[in-house]
Amino acid sequence: MLERWYGVMRYFEDFVVGDTFDLGSATITRESIIAFASQYDPQPFHVDEERARASVFGGLIASGWQTTAVFMRLFVDNLLSDAASMGSPGLDEIRWLKPVRPDDRLRARFTVVEARPSTRRADRGTVYSLCEMVNQRDEVVMTLKGLHILGRRP
Amino acid sequence: MLERWYGVMRYFEDFVVGDTFDLGSATITRESIIAFASQYDPQPFHVDEERARASVFGGLIASGWQTTAVFMRLFVDNLLSDAASMGSPGLDEIRWLKPVRPDDRLRARFTVVEARPSTRRADRGTVYSLCEMVNQRDEVVMTLKGLHILGRRP
Repeated sequence: MLERWYGVMRYFEDFVVGDTFDLGSATITRESIIAFASQYDPQPFHVDEERARASVFGGLIASGWQTTAVFMRLFVDNLLSDAASMGSPGLDEIRWLKPVRPDDRLRARFTVVEARPSTRRADRGTVYSLCEMVNQRDEVVMTLKGLHILGRRP
Repeated sequence: MLERWYGVMRYFEDFVVGDTFDLGSATITRESIIAFASQYDPQPFHVDEERARASVFGGLIASGWQTTAVFMRLFVDNLLSDAASMGSPGLDEIRWLKPVRPDDRLRARFTVVEARPSTRRADRGTVYSLCEMVNQRDEVVMTLKGLHILGRRP
């Protein structure tokens, strides 16, 4: 696990296969679950306590899209904001492995799986990652196989 | 393209390979781009007009996660709310193909690619889909290969 390099810009070359970055953590409150889902994913088990209890989940759970959004925020704050980011063409897989429930504390982790210089553009490369969210019981609740375009060191 | 069946519950059996559902549309405003990204994806090209102009994108663009979240809302409102949804284990791919810019109007489309009854649980099955967001110039701006668990007809 690497320390954050404060004030140092990270380029494509700084993402080395096998490196894992700890991106910090965030608590998912009941209020935030209902607020996010009311706007973007108003299924009963995300917004209605009573119907959630009667559902297959047995209680309120966070929208999977909230888990990805909170991951993204931790990723930007703790890694991408110091990097020569040129955006992302997408991602290759998301798995929501365990329900996220009110007051769960999720820790975000980013592991470099592959780093491939662009063959068409000399100024950039693609970093392939395994992104994970882990709860307070050390259960991996989400995995995401990310792609990210980063500028090369000038 | 199928009409929405008002008041009729949709089960696994009602998702037939090749069917396409029109899920309606939403306009992505400048305000919503900045509001979403300020909370979940505060990269300069999503939140800062001036730095966005200087970036590879040449102007403010929506976070890809906003596009997926708005897709999800249209999907819930116009299809899932009438279906025996048991959630989703994840998805197999997202591609953000074109930037989404202020005032773009995005139409959501859901096509059934495969429908596989569960071999372990007789009461459910998985629907595999191609989900798309298309802008006002008929450009596909996002594709997403979704998985969804649906209850079987009792």
